[in-house]
Amino acid sequence: MTEIQKSNENIVYIGKKPTMNYVLAVITQFKTGSKLVVIKARGHSISQAVDIAEIVKHRFLPEVKSEVKIDTEKLKNEDGRESNVSSIEISMKM
Amino acid sequence: MTEIQKSNENIVYIGKKPTMNYVLAVITQFKTGSKLVVIKARGHSISQAVDIAEIVKHRFLPEVKSEVKIDTEKLKNEDGRESNVSSIEISMKM
Repeated sequence: MTEIQKSNENIVYIGKKPTMNYVLAVITQFKTGSKLVVIKARGHSISQAVDIAEIVKHRFLPEVKSEVKIDTEKLKNEDGRESNVSSIEISMKM
Repeated sequence: MTEIQKSNENIVYIGKKPTMNYVLAVITQFKTGSKLVVIKARGHSISQAVDIAEIVKHRFLPEVKSEVKIDTEKLKNEDGRESNVSSIEISMKM
């Protein structure tokens, strides 16, 4: 077991649910023993991902440290064309 | 002159203008000699800030490195109540 190893369980993907659902998902991960939870989002959900990380930290788990990476992902549209979409990865460490 | 020193000229605040206006503002900063440009945004503009940083990097200046910080700011509403808003700061270095 290396520190780099990540299981999918530790990744929280931000979709269309309310912010507090994801906050709860992240907190649950930590409360069940995870030392690292990664929040991932693309496009318009990026702002919500930052909200979620900040709410977890400021309202529930002030000892958590976050590290942020941004990137660009290529997506295939329905008509087969490629388009670029920005993404964010917020690693939260206990 | 220390490296930490920042003049306000090097900060690009993301508001309601089209994305490419801000991309151009960042590129102009670099082309006129800045080594560091900081993109700042709050709330829903956070996703746009990430888009801007990624477009600058992937389409125009691939040599630029970015470093991201997220935070929470307290804002006073019109009726005097305080509310929290997430913020992002993307430091782009040549």
